[in-house]
Amino acid sequence: MKEVLVIGIGAGDPDHLTLQAVKAIAAADVFFVLDKGSGEGPEAHDLTRLRRDVIRTHAREPYRLVEARDPERDRTGDAYTEAVEDWRSRRADVYERLILDDLGDTETGAILVWGDPSLYDSTLAVLEDVLARGSARFGHTVIPGVSSVSALAARHRVSLTRVARPLHITTGRRLARAIADGTDRPGEPDEAGDVVVMLDAHCAFADIPGDADIDIYWGAYLGTPDEILISGRVGDVAERIRSTRAEARARKGWIMDTYLLRRAPEAGGRGGVRRV
Amino acid sequence: MKEVLVIGIGAGDPDHLTLQAVKAIAAADVFFVLDKGSGEGPEAHDLTRLRRDVIRTHAREPYRLVEARDPERDRTGDAYTEAVEDWRSRRADVYERLILDDLGDTETGAILVWGDPSLYDSTLAVLEDVLARGSARFGHTVIPGVSSVSALAARHRVSLTRVARPLHITTGRRLARAIADGTDRPGEPDEAGDVVVMLDAHCAFADIPGDADIDIYWGAYLGTPDEILISGRVGDVAERIRSTRAEARARKGWIMDTYLLRRAPEAGGRGGVRRV
Ligand SMILES: C[S@@+](CC[C@H](N)C(=O)[O-])C[C@H]1O[C@@H](n2cnc3c(N)ncnc32)[C@H](O)[C@@H]1O
Ligand SMILES: C[S@@+](CC[C@H](N)C(=O)[O-])C[C@H]1O[C@@H](n2cnc3c(N)ncnc32)[C@H](O)[C@@H]1O
Repeated sequence: MKEVLVIGIGAGDPDHLTLQAVKAIAAADVFFVLDKGSGEGPEAHDLTRLRRDVIRTHAREPYRLVEARDPERDRTGDAYTEAVEDWRSRRADVYERLILDDLGDTETGAILVWGDPSLYDSTLAVLEDVLARGSARFGHTVIPGVSSVSALAARHRVSLTRVARPLHITTGRRLARAIADGTDRPGEPDEAGDVVVMLDAHCAFADIPGDADIDIYWGAYLGTPDEILISGRVGDVAERIRSTRAEARARKGWIMDTYLLRRAPEAGGRGGVRRV
Repeated sequence: MKEVLVIGIGAGDPDHLTLQAVKAIAAADVFFVLDKGSGEGPEAHDLTRLRRDVIRTHAREPYRLVEARDPERDRTGDAYTEAVEDWRSRRADVYERLILDDLGDTETGAILVWGDPSLYDSTLAVLEDVLARGSARFGHTVIPGVSSVSALAARHRVSLTRVARPLHITTGRRLARAIADGTDRPGEPDEAGDVVVMLDAHCAFADIPGDADIDIYWGAYLGTPDEILISGRVGDVAERIRSTRAEARARKGWIMDTYLLRRAPEAGGRGGVRRV
């Protein structure tokens, strides 16, 4: 039986790798690396290089590295969910081909996933799609990893949860919509108290009213030599984060950032004293 | 300067340790292990043993292991938050003493934290309390770890997030209250769609109406040889989870379990079609 390992490699620091991930990498015969192609710029380049370094360090010779072109995603339209789902189905085409053509019948293939495979990553859903098609048959195993959310908290030395309170993990788009609506949007910062925002390309935090009793813990390039950390009352630091982010992005050509929004306890409570 | 390392060790599997954690353990002169005392039963015993095994495997000789009695928590009253805060302050007393008396001026002390230190763990808040008191001076560094949440998702091979949707992480108490109230409680399963529940001593999921369009992915003793996984439509499997959990708990004397509740996409949406 073919076996596919989906391996969380942590969020930037090669030492985020778990012993389980190290063993899984050493057990693989083939590594599947989806590459954005040279047209896709420095981000793809840097992240693909990091994956290759991890493989070079921990893989057991002889191994094969099979690269395939990652389908491009339509970033033009408004229909975000549909665009992502279309992209997912084209990714399923790619993985189906790789598993059919490039993985021997008793071989183990590995896919290295950034951070933890369970957070905003399509690999598991794509493999389910491939299995549902029925043509490629394989078993698969998932190796959890350190997420960028855990890395963020660690670097700021804060807990994400407070006693008996929940944590909400959401996207920049959803936060922006909640702020724009000014509505009692379920689970967004006005009630949840603690919200982690990922995939925010547009600094949604910058639209939080400056007098809100909310602290932000922001981190970019976590775990890498370029790591940047900024924290403080959101009204005090939002502008600094925005300009720092713009400069860093211009300098490196790409950025990955995430942040925790934490409502001051006295302003919080379940009812949502203040809207953001 | 004294240095304290707060090291996430993963959620049950010794191979959840990251390379960073392995290096941090090897760098420590002293390990602080808070012990519940023999009166506290098999859970404390098993978990303390796992920590000791990790130390024995990765620590660099010579090292010291300093054990202290973990203050007992008042589990009788209704005032959960207050009880936890009182407990935290007595834990701060303990760590303050340990750092003052058992950590040399240029030494590195280590505290091993279950899972990831940022999720429902008081160690970071306790160290902040100790620092705020001003008597013990030390630097501290946090090493992120694989959380039980990531372990749960990996073992069920599911993503915790769906495209463009948020994830809510909450406690059994909060879920039980939301179900009992039948209210539009922010961020609980009726809207959030994907909810991870931790610290649930009373099977709150069992009170979700049996006809709800909600799947549950449940895991106990994740990452250990006793691991149990059950998943399915909540109405179909709740009773099985409950009896399995009761048997396992009786057999081992303790249990640690967590689960993901996932509303079927067609029933979900932002508005909350059905309450739980
Ligand atoms: C497609 S998601 C993948 C998340 C990943 N599976 C994880 O567990 O961290 C990418 C988002 O994760 C966050 N992210 C990932 N790595 C990061 C890093 N090293 N520093 C800051 N944010 C990061 C950013 O919010 C980014 O937009
Ligand atoms: C005090 S919290 C600590 C969580 C820990 N910091 C983490 O990152 O997983 C303990 C709760 O975590 C969950 N948990 C921790 N380890 C677990 C395991 N191995 N299997 C299932 N649940 C676990 C349970 O919900 C338990 O009630």
